[in-house]
Amino acid sequence: MFLAQRRLCSLDSRAKFLKTISSSKILGLPTSAKMSLKIINAKRIEGLDSNVWIEFTKLAADPSVVNLGQGLPDISPPIYVKEKLSEIAAIDSLNQYTRGFGHPSLVKALACLYEKFYQNQINPNKEILVTVGAYGSLFNAIQGLIDEGDEVIIIMPFYDCYEPMVRMAGATPVFIPLRSKPVDGKKWSSSDWTLDPQELASKFNSKTKAIILNTPHNPIGKVYTKEELQVIADLCIKYDTLCISDEVYEWLVYTGNKHLKIATFPGMWERTITIGSAGKTFSVTGWKLGWSIGPHHLIKHLQTVQQNTIYTCATPLQEALAQAFWIDIKRMDDPECYFNSLPKELEVKRDRMVHLLESLGLKPIVPDGGYFIIADVSLLDADLSDMKDSNEPYDYKFVKWMTKNKKLSAIPVSAFCNAETKLQFEKFVRFCFIKKDSTLDAAEEIIKAWTRQKS
Amino acid sequence: MFLAQRRLCSLDSRAKFLKTISSSKILGLPTSAKMSLKIINAKRIEGLDSNVWIEFTKLAADPSVVNLGQGLPDISPPIYVKEKLSEIAAIDSLNQYTRGFGHPSLVKALACLYEKFYQNQINPNKEILVTVGAYGSLFNAIQGLIDEGDEVIIIMPFYDCYEPMVRMAGATPVFIPLRSKPVDGKKWSSSDWTLDPQELASKFNSKTKAIILNTPHNPIGKVYTKEELQVIADLCIKYDTLCISDEVYEWLVYTGNKHLKIATFPGMWERTITIGSAGKTFSVTGWKLGWSIGPHHLIKHLQTVQQNTIYTCATPLQEALAQAFWIDIKRMDDPECYFNSLPKELEVKRDRMVHLLESLGLKPIVPDGGYFIIADVSLLDADLSDMKDSNEPYDYKFVKWMTKNKKLSAIPVSAFCNAETKLQFEKFVRFCFIKKDSTLDAAEEIIKAWTRQKS
Repeated sequence: MFLAQRRLCSLDSRAKFLKTISSSKILGLPTSAKMSLKIINAKRIEGLDSNVWIEFTKLAADPSVVNLGQGLPDISPPIYVKEKLSEIAAIDSLNQYTRGFGHPSLVKALACLYEKFYQNQINPNKEILVTVGAYGSLFNAIQGLIDEGDEVIIIMPFYDCYEPMVRMAGATPVFIPLRSKPVDGKKWSSSDWTLDPQELASKFNSKTKAIILNTPHNPIGKVYTKEELQVIADLCIKYDTLCISDEVYEWLVYTGNKHLKIATFPGMWERTITIGSAGKTFSVTGWKLGWSIGPHHLIKHLQTVQQNTIYTCATPLQEALAQAFWIDIKRMDDPECYFNSLPKELEVKRDRMVHLLESLGLKPIVPDGGYFIIADVSLLDADLSDMKDSNEPYDYKFVKWMTKNKKLSAIPVSAFCNAETKLQFEKFVRFCFIKKDSTLDAAEEIIKAWTRQKS
Repeated sequence: MFLAQRRLCSLDSRAKFLKTISSSKILGLPTSAKMSLKIINAKRIEGLDSNVWIEFTKLAADPSVVNLGQGLPDISPPIYVKEKLSEIAAIDSLNQYTRGFGHPSLVKALACLYEKFYQNQINPNKEILVTVGAYGSLFNAIQGLIDEGDEVIIIMPFYDCYEPMVRMAGATPVFIPLRSKPVDGKKWSSSDWTLDPQELASKFNSKTKAIILNTPHNPIGKVYTKEELQVIADLCIKYDTLCISDEVYEWLVYTGNKHLKIATFPGMWERTITIGSAGKTFSVTGWKLGWSIGPHHLIKHLQTVQQNTIYTCATPLQEALAQAFWIDIKRMDDPECYFNSLPKELEVKRDRMVHLLESLGLKPIVPDGGYFIIADVSLLDADLSDMKDSNEPYDYKFVKWMTKNKKLSAIPVSAFCNAETKLQFEKFVRFCFIKKDSTLDAAEEIIKAWTRQKS
């Protein structure tokens, strides 16, 4: 088919076109000298064009590379999730527009699911907004509620879009790092990473409009405890601040830990937007469906953003997701419920990754939740002298080196920091472990060979 | 299943919850007096919360109503489009994230398709951006290129999101109406509606950043001629202005007319973003996929917006769309190619709607393109005295009256105007005719009964 496609396209014109382009480039002239004066980007996106996913996804596209980079499951999604989509694709009406703020059957399923946790009825039409992924929920919340001049507290390391989204809204991000206690001798756990309550309090002031919380945390895997969340809640209430709570890994919590929703803390429902993800819930990141849940006085502003940006999400995916949810809502106490079975499956993979990284001589931070594990790779003393761009942080160079020389890819953790604090995390890289056994086997082969080489 | 679903949800807690809500409402107290001072929407969305689709879609949801409102096909999409999605849903990797700026196979198909019209190679990675519907393309273009203080020319009537999107970017919309020549005796055609070149020139100035063009035009159905586009192109070049060309109905052009792309006019490629839609191309509005095509120096800014708003579009839909495109790209000269067969099918429906509306005593504006037809309904002398909201424009009241009393829905054309100029179009309503014969039969029954009642 590929050859047939190429014949369909006019390769002659390509040659002609490339010639035109390159000749104007050689001359160093813009295509229209006049136009270049006026046609520039809007100021709101100035400096927001770099993106770690684009750069490192391209790097890992080489099929000989074992990709533990982007948080992209290569395990099979549940069979019924895929089957529902197959069935629904055949139904004419489910290939047409649906309600803009969420397909009716999906918002009903979400309301039914989440009211179990909120201990209160959720109005499916007024308190839920279905979005283009959790990413779309974050964008809608920030654009709908954050103004120029506002401050937004972001906990480092942070999912990388938080900062440019806050900047695109004209607001100022205020950063606070998670800090680790010394753990000599012991295993290093994501729970060793905490916020200093005094330091956190010092970040709040009258300009603080919101704090962005992420639990379970990406990339550290921290699951915030009740006490930790209470500190945040108390500050939000004291300073009359919103909480945007990114809980996309809510089901992926390992033995001994429990995911808690800050929106259920006294006084928090009315000031919290809680964000979830179909991609993370059902291992279908390519569906790009997410949701925001919160009080109508907040959700209505996110709805306004949505109706002026994308209007509505894809109908067949929303209906398939709703039907998948009903299957698992009906068996939530059953070990086979995907909300229960996936974390069990992943815990085994987490433990395998811990051992693998330890076998390399690393001391990984064992995550209590999520599907990432980070480790300080500077202990490996890799020879990065060949890596060209000397201005890049250590972890960027390391990942590029590892991808090229070891055929194993990961994501540099300093990508989850702002420019000024990259140094605090530049020794860490993030590995994704929601991978089928054969992928982890391949990673193991690489790591074993590497270990042999080292010793 | 519905009953089972209801049992799963805690109806008791609903009663309790509603009681809490209503008691606080009765007291007239906000839930938290303190919070209400600080937690308000961002200024950028102030006043942008009303939306014609949400209001009138709700109204037409009554199953006894024949819905000729929203531009939502009830004809079957091509069988191969649905089948491709069914097949792809079963493939694990196609349910995961893909490239953020467009799934590789889809941007390749789009490049191959459109280079036939641009007479030049299109770089699939640098000159195309796949978006959440054409809506998402409009948003990305406006957010990426339009700044606070800029002016953007919008031709009235206009697809209703243009105005709030421009306002959300902090820019000022500058309106110019299409005006009709007198057409006594003759059929009234969409081509009778034109821009006055002097009036158009008067709208351009040094602050003008862009003009939004829509051809074929929604709701009038106008297909801009070469001469008309040349006037616009000349002004864009003279005033160094961008053109955002919404061409979602590009294939739906009727006998005697030809769709032209302003981006192919000399000097225009470098300043034009051309927007297309999978929903309109393959009658799958629920897939919410669109694309922007233009030079990299513009597209790169739309890409920056996309990576900070939704990051990527749904993978299975993009792959299915790519495969559907290849089927039709290979038979573009064949009458069975959907790009050729759909306009033929719709032309018959258009003519039927013309006769139906004429039989009611109306003088519809016969569209040269698109799938809408508008008519001045004030000639019907409907008794709207019962319609409550007397501040609404005539057409809003008329459509509500018609939906309630005749069980036929449509969309008021003043929804496609700004607040100050609604009066110029408030006598018109828009009917959608991409409907299966049984739907048009039902509309015919209603109109025949109405005609009998009148005579």
